[in-house]
Amino acid sequence: MKKLSFKKNKKQFKDTEYEASNQTIIVPPKEVKISVIDYDADFFEEKMMDNLKNLYDYKENDHTSWINIEGTHDAQIIKRLGWLYHLHPVLQEAVCRENQRAKIDFYEHNIFVVLQMLSYNDTIDDLETEQISIVLGEKYLITFQEGKEGDVFDDIRVNLRGSSKQKLRNAGSSYLFYVLLDAIIDNYFLILEKITDKLESLEIKIIRDQASKDPTYELYEYKQRLMTVRKAIRPLRDIVGQLSREDNKIIRESGFYLRGLYQRITQVVEDTENHIEMSSNLLNMYLSVIGQRTNQVMKTLTIFSAIFMPLTFIAGVYGMNFENMPELKWKYGYLIVMILMGVFSGLAYWFFKRMKWL
Amino acid sequence: MKKLSFKKNKKQFKDTEYEASNQTIIVPPKEVKISVIDYDADFFEEKMMDNLKNLYDYKENDHTSWINIEGTHDAQIIKRLGWLYHLHPVLQEAVCRENQRAKIDFYEHNIFVVLQMLSYNDTIDDLETEQISIVLGEKYLITFQEGKEGDVFDDIRVNLRGSSKQKLRNAGSSYLFYVLLDAIIDNYFLILEKITDKLESLEIKIIRDQASKDPTYELYEYKQRLMTVRKAIRPLRDIVGQLSREDNKIIRESGFYLRGLYQRITQVVEDTENHIEMSSNLLNMYLSVIGQRTNQVMKTLTIFSAIFMPLTFIAGVYGMNFENMPELKWKYGYLIVMILMGVFSGLAYWFFKRMKWL
Amino acid sequence: MKKLSFKKNKKQFKDTEYEASNQTIIVPPKEVKISVIDYDADFFEEKMMDNLKNLYDYKENDHTSWINIEGTHDAQIIKRLGWLYHLHPVLQEAVCRENQRAKIDFYEHNIFVVLQMLSYNDTIDDLETEQISIVLGEKYLITFQEGKEGDVFDDIRVNLRGSSKQKLRNAGSSYLFYVLLDAIIDNYFLILEKITDKLESLEIKIIRDQASKDPTYELYEYKQRLMTVRKAIRPLRDIVGQLSREDNKIIRESGFYLRGLYQRITQVVEDTENHIEMSSNLLNMYLSVIGQRTNQVMKTLTIFSAIFMPLTFIAGVYGMNFENMPELKWKYGYLIVMILMGVFSGLAYWFFKRMKWL
Amino acid sequence: MKKLSFKKNKKQFKDTEYEASNQTIIVPPKEVKISVIDYDADFFEEKMMDNLKNLYDYKENDHTSWINIEGTHDAQIIKRLGWLYHLHPVLQEAVCRENQRAKIDFYEHNIFVVLQMLSYNDTIDDLETEQISIVLGEKYLITFQEGKEGDVFDDIRVNLRGSSKQKLRNAGSSYLFYVLLDAIIDNYFLILEKITDKLESLEIKIIRDQASKDPTYELYEYKQRLMTVRKAIRPLRDIVGQLSREDNKIIRESGFYLRGLYQRITQVVEDTENHIEMSSNLLNMYLSVIGQRTNQVMKTLTIFSAIFMPLTFIAGVYGMNFENMPELKWKYGYLIVMILMGVFSGLAYWFFKRMKWL
Amino acid sequence: MKKLSFKKNKKQFKDTEYEASNQTIIVPPKEVKISVIDYDADFFEEKMMDNLKNLYDYKENDHTSWINIEGTHDAQIIKRLGWLYHLHPVLQEAVCRENQRAKIDFYEHNIFVVLQMLSYNDTIDDLETEQISIVLGEKYLITFQEGKEGDVFDDIRVNLRGSSKQKLRNAGSSYLFYVLLDAIIDNYFLILEKITDKLESLEIKIIRDQASKDPTYELYEYKQRLMTVRKAIRPLRDIVGQLSREDNKIIRESGFYLRGLYQRITQVVEDTENHIEMSSNLLNMYLSVIGQRTNQVMKTLTIFSAIFMPLTFIAGVYGMNFENMPELKWKYGYLIVMILMGVFSGLAYWFFKRMKWL
Repeated sequence: MKKLSFKKNKKQFKDTEYEASNQTIIVPPKEVKISVIDYDADFFEEKMMDNLKNLYDYKENDHTSWINIEGTHDAQIIKRLGWLYHLHPVLQEAVCRENQRAKIDFYEHNIFVVLQMLSYNDTIDDLETEQISIVLGEKYLITFQEGKEGDVFDDIRVNLRGSSKQKLRNAGSSYLFYVLLDAIIDNYFLILEKITDKLESLEIKIIRDQASKDPTYELYEYKQRLMTVRKAIRPLRDIVGQLSREDNKIIRESGFYLRGLYQRITQVVEDTENHIEMSSNLLNMYLSVIGQRTNQVMKTLTIFSAIFMPLTFIAGVYGMNFENMPELKWKYGYLIVMILMGVFSGLAYWFFKRMKWL
Repeated sequence: MKKLSFKKNKKQFKDTEYEASNQTIIVPPKEVKISVIDYDADFFEEKMMDNLKNLYDYKENDHTSWINIEGTHDAQIIKRLGWLYHLHPVLQEAVCRENQRAKIDFYEHNIFVVLQMLSYNDTIDDLETEQISIVLGEKYLITFQEGKEGDVFDDIRVNLRGSSKQKLRNAGSSYLFYVLLDAIIDNYFLILEKITDKLESLEIKIIRDQASKDPTYELYEYKQRLMTVRKAIRPLRDIVGQLSREDNKIIRESGFYLRGLYQRITQVVEDTENHIEMSSNLLNMYLSVIGQRTNQVMKTLTIFSAIFMPLTFIAGVYGMNFENMPELKWKYGYLIVMILMGVFSGLAYWFFKRMKWL
Repeated sequence: MKKLSFKKNKKQFKDTEYEASNQTIIVPPKEVKISVIDYDADFFEEKMMDNLKNLYDYKENDHTSWINIEGTHDAQIIKRLGWLYHLHPVLQEAVCRENQRAKIDFYEHNIFVVLQMLSYNDTIDDLETEQISIVLGEKYLITFQEGKEGDVFDDIRVNLRGSSKQKLRNAGSSYLFYVLLDAIIDNYFLILEKITDKLESLEIKIIRDQASKDPTYELYEYKQRLMTVRKAIRPLRDIVGQLSREDNKIIRESGFYLRGLYQRITQVVEDTENHIEMSSNLLNMYLSVIGQRTNQVMKTLTIFSAIFMPLTFIAGVYGMNFENMPELKWKYGYLIVMILMGVFSGLAYWFFKRMKWL
Repeated sequence: MKKLSFKKNKKQFKDTEYEASNQTIIVPPKEVKISVIDYDADFFEEKMMDNLKNLYDYKENDHTSWINIEGTHDAQIIKRLGWLYHLHPVLQEAVCRENQRAKIDFYEHNIFVVLQMLSYNDTIDDLETEQISIVLGEKYLITFQEGKEGDVFDDIRVNLRGSSKQKLRNAGSSYLFYVLLDAIIDNYFLILEKITDKLESLEIKIIRDQASKDPTYELYEYKQRLMTVRKAIRPLRDIVGQLSREDNKIIRESGFYLRGLYQRITQVVEDTENHIEMSSNLLNMYLSVIGQRTNQVMKTLTIFSAIFMPLTFIAGVYGMNFENMPELKWKYGYLIVMILMGVFSGLAYWFFKRMKWL
Repeated sequence: MKKLSFKKNKKQFKDTEYEASNQTIIVPPKEVKISVIDYDADFFEEKMMDNLKNLYDYKENDHTSWINIEGTHDAQIIKRLGWLYHLHPVLQEAVCRENQRAKIDFYEHNIFVVLQMLSYNDTIDDLETEQISIVLGEKYLITFQEGKEGDVFDDIRVNLRGSSKQKLRNAGSSYLFYVLLDAIIDNYFLILEKITDKLESLEIKIIRDQASKDPTYELYEYKQRLMTVRKAIRPLRDIVGQLSREDNKIIRESGFYLRGLYQRITQVVEDTENHIEMSSNLLNMYLSVIGQRTNQVMKTLTIFSAIFMPLTFIAGVYGMNFENMPELKWKYGYLIVMILMGVFSGLAYWFFKRMKWL
């Protein structure tokens, strides 16, 4: 994952991690995992493969084949697969290149989709992107993942292995395609909910004035994350929109589902934008609250000064050492001065009361 | 109602309720209420039903039937109803799923609408959402409600029971459909008016400086509510717009009314957006007012300091205990110093007057 | 006029009026005034009528008839008129309902326009809305006014009564329609100019720092008014735009004039939006000015404190009553301390001069 | 020039001018100047005329005639000219009316353009608007100017008088039209550059903190000017865009040049909008800088108070006149107190150093 | 490069450079460098030329010729080249004129593109613009550069010289055109990454409060640069978009690549806009942080004042020289006062603790 935008490594905010990231870490190249699930209503086969040798069989048979490639660093495998499934060389390149904008291309025999999947990594308490490329043919579907841990597609695999009566086993590859997209978009929903929950509790903290420290940093971080979500999901919405309008024979069968998907993703986009606007509102509100408080502090200071400065001055006057100060010799001089000071304090109190400063 | 957006539980701001929400409350599952109103110009029948047995009769006859289902948690009932009225399985699912974006689908025999109804719950002093799904056929109309208390459709029922000469009894299901939408949109109008009234009185309070506490929280809350209204009504406007343009045989008869409805809903949307902008203006204005006041407080403080600091210093000087301080022995030393202090105060006063600080 | 938006009763800002508005005022229902002007190049007749009896004659003849109804509370009159001139029942209702969004409807025999006219009421120093509905037929034009005082159409009546050679007398009803719209839009121009003049003088006051009190409230009020103007004129522009593009036989003759009108109204809209943006700029500028001033006040305070606090401290030190303080017995102790204090003040002055605080 | 928008008389900011503007100035009505330039590749004639008598000759001949009318207050002249060149009465009126939005109308025999020309008046240090109307026929071009001093078209006249081999003399009226528009748009470029230069030097001043006074007013003034430019040039761009797309026989010949012109004017519009956004950025940056400085000043004040208040208090304690204060009689009492004070100051210094306030 | 926009010379912020820029620097006119690369799959020739004499040969042969002209100040050369390759005179002019908005023109025999290339000049630590004009014919491609140092096309030349089997040597001029555009857009990516890296480290500094000085200036500078990038790349995106949609025979062959390019440039534009928005967020966050800190400083000041002002006052009271002050003679007067002061301080501490100021 290249550090392209200045919101990708929010994790650096946590000091310890940041220090660590300065050390050189040598990651051993992961192996590419190839798995095939071949199924129709009556048949189910699941296999992990080391190489692409037997893949040709899956292409020829009548079942729907879902080939999943984890790890996109081995250009050889992608090249062979590309040759087998008539993938344009540019697409082969696109599969390998990271951090691309989500896009869709329609070919004669297949549809090619690149998209960014967001997931919330609890370990580093930050968002993670994983690029997924999908090639959809009439009888097959190939998915390329970068190979991060945790897989959003596991539930779908479990479903496939399950009862042969369910729709997923009976419908073709385009329905599988829809189910995959659905899982990805569901993930966005979950992330949005996670950020929203944190924003909500921050909101309550701010309003009850229980925010332990300056909540600005936290608010800023959540807003940046929401913008990351928006950045990732907007092109995804365009793609789903295009899919739901396209009259392509490969996806025609699932058009109805894709239109529903488009409505759901539109909701995610709208919610994200709403939340961004709301976090701006929250910051503005907080700015006003700070202004209010500074004002309050200033008033306290001014009241203290306005009361004690004159008093101290009077005390200072009668602390002067002039030989000829008649008041000093009066019997009740001290008493009178003390009473005067009391009266003055009372007046000041009344004045600030009337000014509504107290 | 899932907590999806961080504006849904403003109620948590009231402390007591918040505490309460931490307790586990067990809500006994409500029963599903099914009611049927079957009518035309000459005929009127209203029935509460326990199950769907006799529903088939209503489908077959020539009257317009309005079937209202309160409670969408019983999938069985929806399934049977779906089978009876040819509802697509996806629609059956949509009826049950909460918190969806308003949407419309046109089928061969019916029109399917999902929309969010907002209502103002006075008990918790906050907005509440209820999802309503409507299926409109040529001779029937089915409404699915979540089953909240208070029903926006009661007036319509009263009307139906009334004189058989009114338009509602003589026109078909599409006019009933229009009347239902009209009632829902009227509700938005009422909510908007409620928020607006509160905003107005807050505005007057701020301008007269009678806001008891920091009005920022209140302003923020109203703005969030307005955004909730906007979020709910925008997709609703799209739907009414689509209905008013569509040349579908089921709603053709009421096209004229739907176009009028579209103009009304457009007004609600515009008003909401105007109010959001205005509450932003109000906050900005208040920020400037706070700035002004802090400035005023600072001036008061500075004037006090600028007058009393030098005076206290002079008093301090003549309070020093040096043996050789000739002024101390002058007969009018004390008087001269007091006069000098008076003159200095006068000059300071004149200076601040000229600076327009007083 | 319902209180729908929180900008309608700015008049409440003036306290006295507000108190007054709490009293119950019983307004006797005004009578509906009906006036007819029947004219062509050679003929002119003007009549005030009590009822609609003779209206049929005006419909049948070949002259252009302008029927003006002041007061829309009498549904009976509108109903009869509607029957006479084939007005759709929905339109009859629209005429009576207040505070509608401007709209236009094209019918077979006439064009129906509802619009909001703004006028500046000098008595309450605020904007007032009046709803005007216009029905335009080939030989007649009906205007419905709420019946506020002051009439923007008086000039047009005077013109009609005048020379029979002018265009207004020779052209048909559609030209009269254009002239009425023109008068209404001219009114917007006047209001905009009025607000602009006030904004200008406020701007100059702010820049010269002559604003007697906090100009924020005033600025806020003008901005709200500009938003009221924008809210009213935007739908009006849409209507004029639609009229200028429509190829309807009733208005075809005046299409050229309506296109010109559209350009003028576009200018009003653009100017209004420009002014709103500018008043935002003005507020931002003022915020910065306040910030600047607070900064200046703080500097004054800090300079005073920084000079007198150390001086007072030194004086305090030599005011201590220790028995063993050798400096107190020096012959020039007092002089030395005073000189030291002078030098210190000089240094402080030089320091603040270099810091550019003075 | 009517005072329509509150940005037209920025000149009033300079006090002296403002005072002057309160005096009544009687401007003698200027005479209308009519000049004709009649040319083709082989022929050139330039004439100043008192009246329109001989204008008919120019219309009939085969040369391209450029008729320039300076001063639009004489409706008679415009009427006669209108009659001669088939100008619609509405256009004749449009020529005379000031402060119109730029617009274009296509007629059978000519194209009519009204546009606002901006120029920078160095005397009053402000922008000035002049309305120019252009009528373009196949063999003629008529320009109407308000008759301000300084003429943006002088260079074009000089060019026309020059070599007969240049394109301007050989191409027809539409090329002349393009050249005139080009000169006007060039003027916008110059104005934009002028404002930009001032903004640049203000920016540098602010960043180096050399802004003699509050730069806010200046910044505000430049922003208002940029908005004036934007307001004037946006409709102009629409016009040039329409001209560049229109397939009208009168301008077809110069379509290529007009498309180039459209690209240039688009650049001016984009630059203007960019600059408006940038001046907003500059103000925001300045606001933050002020906040920073106030913070700095506050720290200085707090440091002084925090050091000297306790010291003064201690001195005050030992200045008390209690009879029984044992410390006062200690031999090193004074020394000890002074040392304690020194230590305390050191600690305070160290504390503020650690807090990074110093 | 004309100083057209006030963001072009950010370099002036560094004082030393600014001084230098006031000195007159005489730049000797650079010579125009002409280079030709003539190639196809089997053939490769590269030549530097002094004049255009032999260029005709390259035009006639069957190889793809890439003619690169560095330096656009010699109008003669451009004229001759224009005559040779049928360039419209307006294009010849466009090549020479600096600082144009990116544009594209389609002609019968060639496509003409003008675009602005941004590069990061490390010496002056600022962005630099260079205008590049490209003429694309079926068998040739001409590039005109201003002749700045550092060449983004060098890699492409190296590639051309390399293996004859690669796509670049086998495809025609339109593929070369795509590769050139690709290199230019890659450069934008690099610049964006550079600014982003700086923004990121500034962000971390701000959040950890390690920003040595006021980070506002730096933030402002980066934002201005991002706006420069946006200004340059938006028209470029329009051009690539037009190229990718156009069905022109000259570029048809590379349409597929150009569509991919369009997706990449869209990503750059979106990222730029995202970053601009984010730097605004960062500034707002920083403003709130400053407000917070000022608040904190004020609290410190107020606490000091609130504690020491009353204490100093009490000390002042007992420093008064009244003859009749009974307390002064009490045995434990001094002790009692000291204890009272201690108690008072304790109460004040407790009070501020409860107010959460400590």
